[in-house]
Amino acid sequence: MTAYQELMAFQRDTEALGQIAGRLGWDQETVMPRGAASQRGEEMAAIEAVLHARRCDPKIAEWLDTAEASDEAAAAQLRLIRRSYERAVRVPGDLSRRIAQVTSEAQGKWAAARADQDVAAFLPVLQEVVALKREEGQALAQGGNVYDAMLDDYEPGITGAEIAAIFDAMRPRLVDLRAAVLDRPGPTALQGDFDETLQMQLTTELAQAFGYDLSHGRVDKAVHPFSSGSGNDVRITTRTSLSDPFNCFYSTIHEVGHGAYEQNIDKAYLLTPVGRGASMGVHESQSRIYENQLGRGRAFTGWLFGRMTDTFGRFGIDTADQFYAAVNAVKNGYIRTEADELQYNLHIMLRFDLERALMSGDLQVADLEAAWNDRFAADFGYAVDKPSNGCLQDVHWSVGLFGYFPTYSLGNVYAGCLFEALKADLPDLDAQLGAGDTAPATGWLKDKLQQHGSLRTPRETIALASGMEPGPEPLLNYLEAKFRGIYDL
Amino acid sequence: MTAYQELMAFQRDTEALGQIAGRLGWDQETVMPRGAASQRGEEMAAIEAVLHARRCDPKIAEWLDTAEASDEAAAAQLRLIRRSYERAVRVPGDLSRRIAQVTSEAQGKWAAARADQDVAAFLPVLQEVVALKREEGQALAQGGNVYDAMLDDYEPGITGAEIAAIFDAMRPRLVDLRAAVLDRPGPTALQGDFDETLQMQLTTELAQAFGYDLSHGRVDKAVHPFSSGSGNDVRITTRTSLSDPFNCFYSTIHEVGHGAYEQNIDKAYLLTPVGRGASMGVHESQSRIYENQLGRGRAFTGWLFGRMTDTFGRFGIDTADQFYAAVNAVKNGYIRTEADELQYNLHIMLRFDLERALMSGDLQVADLEAAWNDRFAADFGYAVDKPSNGCLQDVHWSVGLFGYFPTYSLGNVYAGCLFEALKADLPDLDAQLGAGDTAPATGWLKDKLQQHGSLRTPRETIALASGMEPGPEPLLNYLEAKFRGIYDL
Repeated sequence: MTAYQELMAFQRDTEALGQIAGRLGWDQETVMPRGAASQRGEEMAAIEAVLHARRCDPKIAEWLDTAEASDEAAAAQLRLIRRSYERAVRVPGDLSRRIAQVTSEAQGKWAAARADQDVAAFLPVLQEVVALKREEGQALAQGGNVYDAMLDDYEPGITGAEIAAIFDAMRPRLVDLRAAVLDRPGPTALQGDFDETLQMQLTTELAQAFGYDLSHGRVDKAVHPFSSGSGNDVRITTRTSLSDPFNCFYSTIHEVGHGAYEQNIDKAYLLTPVGRGASMGVHESQSRIYENQLGRGRAFTGWLFGRMTDTFGRFGIDTADQFYAAVNAVKNGYIRTEADELQYNLHIMLRFDLERALMSGDLQVADLEAAWNDRFAADFGYAVDKPSNGCLQDVHWSVGLFGYFPTYSLGNVYAGCLFEALKADLPDLDAQLGAGDTAPATGWLKDKLQQHGSLRTPRETIALASGMEPGPEPLLNYLEAKFRGIYDL
Repeated sequence: MTAYQELMAFQRDTEALGQIAGRLGWDQETVMPRGAASQRGEEMAAIEAVLHARRCDPKIAEWLDTAEASDEAAAAQLRLIRRSYERAVRVPGDLSRRIAQVTSEAQGKWAAARADQDVAAFLPVLQEVVALKREEGQALAQGGNVYDAMLDDYEPGITGAEIAAIFDAMRPRLVDLRAAVLDRPGPTALQGDFDETLQMQLTTELAQAFGYDLSHGRVDKAVHPFSSGSGNDVRITTRTSLSDPFNCFYSTIHEVGHGAYEQNIDKAYLLTPVGRGASMGVHESQSRIYENQLGRGRAFTGWLFGRMTDTFGRFGIDTADQFYAAVNAVKNGYIRTEADELQYNLHIMLRFDLERALMSGDLQVADLEAAWNDRFAADFGYAVDKPSNGCLQDVHWSVGLFGYFPTYSLGNVYAGCLFEALKADLPDLDAQLGAGDTAPATGWLKDKLQQHGSLRTPRETIALASGMEPGPEPLLNYLEAKFRGIYDL
């Protein structure tokens, strides 16, 4: 065997073990008996230790020294393995263990502080997390920018300055659009209860309508919807709420975007680094375009209105236009995860600016709450009423996720670019979606983007699929046109 | 840390990884998407390779050289780790890989041959399996008896000769009892259909009635019922049949015997070698005593008759005595897994004698079908009608399980000993079971046996719990009394 073949055989087992760890995560959130939590923690730690040892195995460096790539795919595999190896060996084992300990503790303290509305109780441990993550960032950055090194874990190749430039172009237009929309009367609300068993039946139909393959996946309930797995075993979860069926249906369509992406990657890349989504941002571009540009568009919601009426009978909405407005209702609210398509990015930009300032030292942990509340009032026009609606609402920072938040909005930006290109290529898109037929659109995404997995960098992936350099203009134009239309501006 | 502590820390991670592999097996049989099978094969191979490398890690030998046991439990841990290590290093890696390949192939050929009623299509690959397993047995036996070395994987410490002595004492009495019973008219059969959702509800109630802890386990459906996991995550499965609710209920009670055993082991032994059941035979003693001596007894079936009538209405049985006879119906049949308590052991003895002869070379693979059919006719009084009802009915030999079959009947023998002691200690047992209260009986088993896990050898475990040297007399006396009573002999 050549060095390349030996490396890839080793890597394939690592990927298979990584899939197992992912499946354990699925199990934990869906079917695990509640009394099994602490034992599961030991089991997860054991397999994570195996994975870590493999990721920084010195044999990888030897193989990388002599391995030769015979084609573009092989070159991409080597690039991704080198990136993973360098990341693994740059962070000292002691520091990793300390981060694991402190974030585990911090997550518990965050949950308690959020329940008690007690920011002060959380700040000391957050300070520790920030210090440890900065130390990790310095080890990764090797003299470069610490926050950029963190971003590299989630969106390889992009810098904080590039993201700031994109977000700075978006913020004023979104703040203005939001204010104009919220000056107008809101849409008619759904009435009555929606049987949760019927919701799960219709949501499974929706998943399949969006091309999710149930012979290589499954749909279950979880408290927080997620997708997991790659290749031939890609599972999604959703949730139901008796009064709010959109929560179920759009959680499902969102997760199908993630899941179908993984299912649609060329099976030649199965259990290899290329055989996974290109980045968090590119992944999110798929979940967002499925959920928003396709799923919440006028055409598809017209079809969904009919299916919901068939399934649940009448629910207080008389026309497909009213239904479309209800699906896209814009309301005041504090919580990122409950935000609509228009306001969501404002929540992200706030977090991006704050976490970048925390990492650079421009913002002190002690000043975090005031900075959050000032920024929220500036963008949303009203004050945060309590910490659980403010800086304590998200788990991310407590578990050490810095550099992760911006990928949500990068996903939206990428989705904007892809949708512009998709519409140009598919002149009959609205007629197709209006008949519940997503196959041309999802087929376009598979063909242009999904099948290639991580063959190219995130930027190249989007640029090649959309035919344009990724930027915020298409998303902003789309949002302005959509919400001006719905709200008659 | 001392050598003992280092060894146990290493072993604990191995045990945790073993639990993960078990959980993947559960996933595969219950919730895995059907298209995920081949990828799952790679994932399982990857974690099995990690486990194998850990089990024969040379560090274990170094630790074992200097580790000192401070108490009985520590001595048992060292004994079990040494046993596992010696087994792992005695079998060459090449041979293990070859066995994995050939048995994987053989399982497919067995399934096809069974479907086609074509013994000849299966024999060449069975010949390969037998040859490879014999080679493995020789490596394990180090000059000793090959079949005894195989038994040691499932029932440490017992020999083929000891089992033969037990079985030889059982066979004539069971053959006679069977013939006498089948001369009598059979019991009244259940009539009508039994809603499968209600079966699952009642079966979950039964699981809890037998002490199964749902906060550390769960009950799902699977094609072949099984239990899996240790400690705080022990899952069982059952199945439903519209016309045969006993299949569901007694599969559940059987698996609860396995599952409750694992759940009830002292948590001080969690994720250690002592923290698992003592052997396949001891495990089966628990599933069998739950299912048969307790679950199919006159007292408990009286309570179950009431619960079934409450749940399903009338089903053609008028009295608790009729119901008891129906639960314990003895019928002609070819299939081991469908056999009643009386005839089951005859199926096992047949397989034990044949597989022992295959391993010693006294029986050639080419002569297997004839030997099977002769023995079946001798013990059951009628001829095998087709291979799927004869020597092709079980998967075991195709996957290389030699030495496993006898543990099913050893479990029955052990259950006989335990039940005799339990009855003597619990004078009110029938009144308790008649009220659906199994707690005194299952509590006795937990206290006397289950909590100790693998602290002692299988023989010592049974001897200490039952107060007698394990032997077949109690089982035979129990079976004769029970079936003579039901069949009015």
